[in-house]
Amino acid sequence: MLIDHLSIIGVGLIGGSLARALRKAEFVGRVTGCNRSEETLKKAVQLGVIDDYSLDIHEAVKKSDVIVVGTPLAISEKLLPKIADSMSANTVLTDVGSVKSGIVKAARQTLFEKFCNFVPGHPIAGTEKNGVEASLEDLFVNHRVILTPVEETCPKACKLITEMWKAAGADVVNLDVQHHDEVLAATSHLPHMLAYALVDCLAGMQERDEIFKYAAGGFADFTRIASSNPEMWHDICFSNRQALVRALEIFSTHINKIKVAIEKSESNELLETFRRAKEARDKFNKEKNR
Amino acid sequence: MLIDHLSIIGVGLIGGSLARALRKAEFVGRVTGCNRSEETLKKAVQLGVIDDYSLDIHEAVKKSDVIVVGTPLAISEKLLPKIADSMSANTVLTDVGSVKSGIVKAARQTLFEKFCNFVPGHPIAGTEKNGVEASLEDLFVNHRVILTPVEETCPKACKLITEMWKAAGADVVNLDVQHHDEVLAATSHLPHMLAYALVDCLAGMQERDEIFKYAAGGFADFTRIASSNPEMWHDICFSNRQALVRALEIFSTHINKIKVAIEKSESNELLETFRRAKEARDKFNKEKNR
Repeated sequence: MLIDHLSIIGVGLIGGSLARALRKAEFVGRVTGCNRSEETLKKAVQLGVIDDYSLDIHEAVKKSDVIVVGTPLAISEKLLPKIADSMSANTVLTDVGSVKSGIVKAARQTLFEKFCNFVPGHPIAGTEKNGVEASLEDLFVNHRVILTPVEETCPKACKLITEMWKAAGADVVNLDVQHHDEVLAATSHLPHMLAYALVDCLAGMQERDEIFKYAAGGFADFTRIASSNPEMWHDICFSNRQALVRALEIFSTHINKIKVAIEKSESNELLETFRRAKEARDKFNKEKNR
Repeated sequence: MLIDHLSIIGVGLIGGSLARALRKAEFVGRVTGCNRSEETLKKAVQLGVIDDYSLDIHEAVKKSDVIVVGTPLAISEKLLPKIADSMSANTVLTDVGSVKSGIVKAARQTLFEKFCNFVPGHPIAGTEKNGVEASLEDLFVNHRVILTPVEETCPKACKLITEMWKAAGADVVNLDVQHHDEVLAATSHLPHMLAYALVDCLAGMQERDEIFKYAAGGFADFTRIASSNPEMWHDICFSNRQALVRALEIFSTHINKIKVAIEKSESNELLETFRRAKEARDKFNKEKNR
């Protein structure tokens, strides 16, 4: 057991799944939950995800060895001052947000001498479901967790959080903060925007009922992520504004090229684009299944 | 047995799966295949998909009760004159193309008095795999097949093709030609363009290796259709140019609105878009699983 006392602020899909996984791995002793809703916390106790809870952050974290912030991005930043006041000098703090630059900046401005104990993290896992009821002990198995430690980050703290995620079954890698946000803008945030835009666009068409009626399997797969939590994605958009807008601009250039190729009968241009894409997607699939 | 002799021109995933399904349902007697590649035809015989074959269209169809054209769109149109010359006055002809306006126009100009026996069809089924090796007897079970008969289409011919697809397990509906092409542009052709554009766009980025390395499950689902056959999609684009370009324009307006909302911090606009899309997607999912 490497963490005697773990506190989870925001006991949802990610926080709940991490607690389950660490219990199973016997990596953690006591788990204390903290949430805005007491109902959620009671459910988490019933489900065996946490041992006890407090609605007050100070109470929940004051004796913790490790604090995991699992709240939505915008809320995490707002909670930092309170957490900073309540955590001990030796407590290691980590988060699970999908964008790292904002939280790192906020933590640097709030945590002062405790900033060295903050290990920014991002587990690349999840489903389109939310809440502690959806939490799974194997959610992170064979999934990547990206940590984005900065110059000031204490190597010992980083090592503990690395071990923690490994115990949950994850494959842990380190990336530079800015690089993380650019890569995720392209690979996750952009596709979510496209799925939301597509579904919203079709839902607004005159033939909307028929459109959804005749949609095939490809459409179902393609738009699954449009069922994701709107509030969470709203936060991600603003938090990763710069990289996401850039990714959207690059994408728009590409889709416009395809449109022009169709309009102007540029047969080779279109075929080459489709072939390049297929090749890249097939390669991705092969490596994923390796 | 309702079809004594069925000829399939283009024995691939769709044609092969239809033959398998009709044999299983004992809806068909003899099945003759016709293909450009003799190797494919030999394999189809080995697999028990067809009984015999000919490389010559005239030989393959001259005594058929029903001819199914399963070749790619552009090829189907080119084969029509030869088929018209070879089919008997009572033979019913159908196709499986994803766009209907082009083939209907070509058939009207080529088949003359036999045009009444052409029943344009489009099974909404398939995988990203190709070829007779990938054919499945249950590919069409619980999938929709859209028929787009026109004014001249003989009701008896339409009834036979409807029964044929029902025997293969499909749910058959009729749509107007133009309407079919508009609905499919939105629900299938547009998503394929987006998936191709996204993968091609990411593959061209500087961080391409990391982008694909850190891609999560959502990305895999979202881009699965980018593994589809480039030649087939090239044909679909040009065949459904007008409706597809319009769908691309509507989509571009939507994605641009999202980009502007992110840039200008239009919080409500963004949240409303995501909520509308989630609601439409959740509704689609519920109805699909009903």
